[in-house]
Amino acid sequence: MIRHTVAFRLKHAAGSVEEKAFLDEALTLKQIPGVRNFEQLRQTSPKNDFTFGFSMEFDDQAGCDAYNVHPLHVAFVRNRWIPEVADFLEIDYTKL
Amino acid sequence: MIRHTVAFRLKHAAGSVEEKAFLDEALTLKQIPGVRNFEQLRQTSPKNDFTFGFSMEFDDQAGCDAYNVHPLHVAFVRNRWIPEVADFLEIDYTKL
Repeated sequence: MIRHTVAFRLKHAAGSVEEKAFLDEALTLKQIPGVRNFEQLRQTSPKNDFTFGFSMEFDDQAGCDAYNVHPLHVAFVRNRWIPEVADFLEIDYTKL
Repeated sequence: MIRHTVAFRLKHAAGSVEEKAFLDEALTLKQIPGVRNFEQLRQTSPKNDFTFGFSMEFDDQAGCDAYNVHPLHVAFVRNRWIPEVADFLEIDYTKL
């Protein structure tokens, strides 16, 4: 199991129409084969500046690699992530 | 639900006896009331410098607050975390 997570902060104002549109569009990522337990999360710790997170799990690295090059993911990164995300950090976990 | 996570890097060499001792001692945190789904994780993304992670869930903020001041947690932070951790980042999530 690989748990792929990304914590991020949008350029949009909190509660804005643009913020909701970004999050709604990100739900298309759930459709990519191999994505399990997709979650949209709010980041609440005051010890970092991120405000949201996505988390998803793959059975193996092949699933994760296929996700990265899938047309839905590539389009989301190009059309929404790059123009609308102010800062982010990817963290990937496997069970010890 | 609050998912409390911390990504970190130890001062110890990978695979060392000291690394194993740290991780073994950290399992005591599972005993703290309110801690659910405690996980010890390996961080695998090349996009950050952390090598491990812990993840746990609490029903609510009161559970998380109680964990922070619990003697087992306070002792672990003082005796192991502060002297043995080189860098870390706490990220907390709630469901959107």
